[in-house]
Amino acid sequence: MEEQLEERRIRVRCAQLSPRIGDAEGNLEAIETELRLAVEDGVGLLVLPELATSGYALTPQEAREVALTADAPIFRRWLGLLEGSGTTAVLGFCERDPADSKAGSDSADVVYNSAVLLTAGAEPVVYRKLHLWDTEKLVFTPGSAAPPIVQTPVGAVGVVICYDIEFPELPRTLALAGAEIVAVPTNWPRRRRPEGEHPHEVVHAMAAAQASGIVIACCDRSGPERGVDWTEGTAIIGADGWPVGRLDGGHRLDAELALIPAAERRRISERNDLFGDRRPEFYRLGT
Amino acid sequence: MEEQLEERRIRVRCAQLSPRIGDAEGNLEAIETELRLAVEDGVGLLVLPELATSGYALTPQEAREVALTADAPIFRRWLGLLEGSGTTAVLGFCERDPADSKAGSDSADVVYNSAVLLTAGAEPVVYRKLHLWDTEKLVFTPGSAAPPIVQTPVGAVGVVICYDIEFPELPRTLALAGAEIVAVPTNWPRRRRPEGEHPHEVVHAMAAAQASGIVIACCDRSGPERGVDWTEGTAIIGADGWPVGRLDGGHRLDAELALIPAAERRRISERNDLFGDRRPEFYRLGT
Repeated sequence: MEEQLEERRIRVRCAQLSPRIGDAEGNLEAIETELRLAVEDGVGLLVLPELATSGYALTPQEAREVALTADAPIFRRWLGLLEGSGTTAVLGFCERDPADSKAGSDSADVVYNSAVLLTAGAEPVVYRKLHLWDTEKLVFTPGSAAPPIVQTPVGAVGVVICYDIEFPELPRTLALAGAEIVAVPTNWPRRRRPEGEHPHEVVHAMAAAQASGIVIACCDRSGPERGVDWTEGTAIIGADGWPVGRLDGGHRLDAELALIPAAERRRISERNDLFGDRRPEFYRLGT
Repeated sequence: MEEQLEERRIRVRCAQLSPRIGDAEGNLEAIETELRLAVEDGVGLLVLPELATSGYALTPQEAREVALTADAPIFRRWLGLLEGSGTTAVLGFCERDPADSKAGSDSADVVYNSAVLLTAGAEPVVYRKLHLWDTEKLVFTPGSAAPPIVQTPVGAVGVVICYDIEFPELPRTLALAGAEIVAVPTNWPRRRRPEGEHPHEVVHAMAAAQASGIVIACCDRSGPERGVDWTEGTAIIGADGWPVGRLDGGHRLDAELALIPAAERRRISERNDLFGDRRPEFYRLGT
């Protein structure tokens, strides 16, 4: 059989929105604007920030009030906007699960820091953040399922959220399971870093992308919120581990990528394969 | 019990030597000079390049000729130089194992791309590279044991070699098993990279250091050899993931590090612990 060397050209966009606590309507409108524009612009994968529907620094009470269910009508509506397009969208939202309410009064208060993947002709796919950052632990319940990988027109897309990407095991798990692109809605609180360096979260994404030959698209947010400043470190990392793309002059980072088949991407020298070279019998990771 | 907050100050040095194929004597002399100087300068951990005793681009025949055994007199001699000091040294060498020769005539040709850790009062500890790069596969046999962690005056030191560090599972394995510092003798063939970026191998080391709160010291080499140019990317990464240290004006990179106890290094926010936050039940790494 002849080798499949065909290149796929994909367009990835991250839109670094500024969600506002208490303005759910404005937040949903901003998201909808991005969805429409992405379809118009022929974007293959649109990534929006973590908790894009609600803002980040929520009190537990506020989180319960703004929480959406996976079958919320707004997701149907947005799926409708994507209908007939090749655009897939990933965005963060504050989730509640009707099944938790049924389970008892304590469970009724459970909310998750989730992301939803929307792609035409499929049900919304929801992921619940596995690794919670700091005060998130006071508000959200951590997920209890592995991140999803969804076959989309743009390729096999995996989803993780923010702090998740700092655990190298997770993007590797997704890549080994077939993900070609990992979408990472994030809210990165600003931290000091040495001059000239990428934010440390971007360093994690670069290493993870290079280690497995996958694309990683991290969409941060902007707009200070209750004393938290953001890194505004949105970055799209190519399958070779280097940041790609450029801002459109505003808050949108677009990258055009030429993806060769995964097996080719992982063949990084005549005799090396990023997966084939692994020696898992010597990795002790408590899994 | 009161919390242990004492800081340990350690001094790490990488000496970016230029080993030459066919000049074993010169190579050993250069190493010995570095060992003496490190002891004089009170260096806690000295890291030297991969295959420092022999040079890199060896033919199989040359590799067999220059191979040393783990009990080679030169290692005894060097241990003698370290006697009474707090200096630990890690350097790469081409290894043969008398046990392989006994196993039969085919096995007599087996050589390993190895590193030896030398610390006063202990036997030499040898590690055989697990992940071989490109044409190394034509010369060396890959290791068949996990990398060692050695208790030294400078802390618990793990050892990997060059391409090994691009497999995030390996530094993570060492960190989870208690390594505080990972020494990485390397020979990084020069590759193009975007302007302003660290070599991709350094990106891997930065991510691995930050993910586990460990120090990673990568010692590259210089001096073109049989058409191979080197990145000369020697880097010492602090436990916060950022490069530290500075060149002494020549080929020696020195870093002074203040190491707080490991549990403190991993507590990166009031509610976050780099290890405690892991969700290994969701990592699928084929281990």
